[in-house]
Amino acid sequence: MDLFNKCYEFTRADEVKAMGVYPYFRPIEENEGPVVQIEGRKIVMAGSNNYLGLTAHPKVKEAALEAVRKYGTGCSGSRYLTGTLDLHIELEERLAKFFGSEAVLLYSTGYQTAQGIIPTLVQGKSEYVVSDRDNHACIVAGQIMAKGLTANLERYKHNDMEDLERVLSKLPIDAPKLIVSDGVFSTGGEIVELPKLVELAKKYNARTLIDDAHAVGVIGKGGRGTASEFNLEKDVDLTMGTFSKTFASLGGFVAGPERVINYLKHFSSALIFSASPTPAAVAAALAALNILEEEPWRVEKLISNANKVRTELKAAGFNVLEGRTAIVPVIVGSDPLAFQMWRKLYDNGVFVNVFISPGVPQGRQMMRTSYMSTHEDEHLDYIINTFKKVGKELGLI
Amino acid sequence: MDLFNKCYEFTRADEVKAMGVYPYFRPIEENEGPVVQIEGRKIVMAGSNNYLGLTAHPKVKEAALEAVRKYGTGCSGSRYLTGTLDLHIELEERLAKFFGSEAVLLYSTGYQTAQGIIPTLVQGKSEYVVSDRDNHACIVAGQIMAKGLTANLERYKHNDMEDLERVLSKLPIDAPKLIVSDGVFSTGGEIVELPKLVELAKKYNARTLIDDAHAVGVIGKGGRGTASEFNLEKDVDLTMGTFSKTFASLGGFVAGPERVINYLKHFSSALIFSASPTPAAVAAALAALNILEEEPWRVEKLISNANKVRTELKAAGFNVLEGRTAIVPVIVGSDPLAFQMWRKLYDNGVFVNVFISPGVPQGRQMMRTSYMSTHEDEHLDYIINTFKKVGKELGLI
Repeated sequence: MDLFNKCYEFTRADEVKAMGVYPYFRPIEENEGPVVQIEGRKIVMAGSNNYLGLTAHPKVKEAALEAVRKYGTGCSGSRYLTGTLDLHIELEERLAKFFGSEAVLLYSTGYQTAQGIIPTLVQGKSEYVVSDRDNHACIVAGQIMAKGLTANLERYKHNDMEDLERVLSKLPIDAPKLIVSDGVFSTGGEIVELPKLVELAKKYNARTLIDDAHAVGVIGKGGRGTASEFNLEKDVDLTMGTFSKTFASLGGFVAGPERVINYLKHFSSALIFSASPTPAAVAAALAALNILEEEPWRVEKLISNANKVRTELKAAGFNVLEGRTAIVPVIVGSDPLAFQMWRKLYDNGVFVNVFISPGVPQGRQMMRTSYMSTHEDEHLDYIINTFKKVGKELGLI
Repeated sequence: MDLFNKCYEFTRADEVKAMGVYPYFRPIEENEGPVVQIEGRKIVMAGSNNYLGLTAHPKVKEAALEAVRKYGTGCSGSRYLTGTLDLHIELEERLAKFFGSEAVLLYSTGYQTAQGIIPTLVQGKSEYVVSDRDNHACIVAGQIMAKGLTANLERYKHNDMEDLERVLSKLPIDAPKLIVSDGVFSTGGEIVELPKLVELAKKYNARTLIDDAHAVGVIGKGGRGTASEFNLEKDVDLTMGTFSKTFASLGGFVAGPERVINYLKHFSSALIFSASPTPAAVAAALAALNILEEEPWRVEKLISNANKVRTELKAAGFNVLEGRTAIVPVIVGSDPLAFQMWRKLYDNGVFVNVFISPGVPQGRQMMRTSYMSTHEDEHLDYIINTFKKVGKELGLI
């Protein structure tokens, strides 16, 4: 057998392309935030993670420009060796203050952050990663690496604290454990049952890691994320996040106790052997953090935007998942219907993300929409009306 | 046992700091390329991967500035969903042309690229990753993930083709295999024995992946890397590389057959679930590629710079590893001596990377130096003279 056989045999993408409904890798030509240009047409964006709409904010752009002028276009080395700028330290210190944590460490992508933490802390034969079944793919990558290094991997039913206790109660009480969960789940937008999760962590000798990629800038006091949402800032051990959503940039971070951050700085492969975030990326995240602190109304506007769409699509008869974050999933229920609906929305000037099987279970195929604080009512009304029009054409409402 | 015990027990970094010889995470305040500012002092940089010195090139900086102005500071989504710009496609097409390969796919960091490829292609129980023992940490991360997914991992002695054949000959001939090797090894700077490696790959039904992070812009025709160096462009299946070295940016890429790239685009977790490279990062890499194509003298200057230091340090009596790439390792031989030498070089205005055990075997502790095409003779002479001065003080020469 040739290793590449699986590549030759994969034809599904070609088939979807031939049907004219292929929704992936569409190149964007201009991006103002709520409106983008694709294939020469202006389209309302309802699928971006640009939650506070800051990638096009003049202050954020100016910070990135200034960083390129001062430091150049790249750092040419890892944080560990020749790739640390004073700017990296400044962002780490500012984030630590923002989250009220002892220390913060940056990674070059949010995706890399999970594997920077999980297999560095959990790799021994007597150690356990205990993970929600619906955690983001970057956590899955991290836990697979932990497993590849001889650690044990246990998974529990999605956001089901009874099942988490069932899993934990079977493990040796003395064994070191890390419970990992998204704070806000990236597909459905639901919030982790954090009070029960941290209670179980204490009862069963486990540490906790919460991925706040879709929570920072969205929930918690002033957008401080999941722990803040539940007043459990002192009870979550490690919080990780990303710069490619609320922070209008690229990169990731982990916030936690100084001794743990210090350990990661010296043993985390994804940190030590990866070039550091670019000057422009760090400066943009710093500027976005300033705006998040100075303009908390943006977080409120984001949620009221998402709530408006959620309420109106539900009222129109769509199967909309309940929630109170920036993600509004509209269930469609089959792969062909999902591709068809995506295409009709796209042709009518609305861009959403289509989730099909096996990414989501059969019957849960969805138009995953997400919102920004820079969406104006005209954009939201356009999205809602286009959904209604297309929904009727497809017999969904 | 508390999961965090290993963090509380790790005190080596504190001890090295207390001795005043801690060489890591030094923040750079200004970066012109060959000279940087650290702790308010100008220091000659002999440890950067900024091989062609392009992070400070006016054309590269202007390209990054223009991209921020046009597209903003981030893409807020993965390539798969809402994070593809026309700029990403342009860079992929330009790189494919540069390498003479059917297709190219970008990743958000070079580090993530290896795991974007290896565990996506090799994950079944009957499949094998066959890896050089000294491969870069990002390949190690990728192969650990493959193992965590049930694939088999076999390693062979560093750049030892007899040992590679010994390993391959024991595996079932029908089993799908991927041989993975650095093109230029990142610690010692030596070049892989590629002609024999591709011969063995054909003989034993294996595909090949070469990591050209330290090879592009350094060896091969016009800096086209390892396959080009050996006229084996048609015989290497997949070549990966990074934008954080020669390309003055951040990100990575894989070049290979269209069908394999197409498969990676639809199954590679590190691609689909990670935000795409920022507009500034892509534009900088594109501008750097233009310069690499238009100014091949930069590659020659880089090698002649490295050769000058290699020759003169050897003549002065240092234990210098032979080579013909941009990396010039000076063996010191013990951890305390390595830390001491790093500190003396630093105090005398030269920045190098110190590699200690267990990162390198006992006796191989080194000052790993690396060069840029923008180093002038005055910089190189300063580095050489400082090495001589410090080497005499420490009794190394």
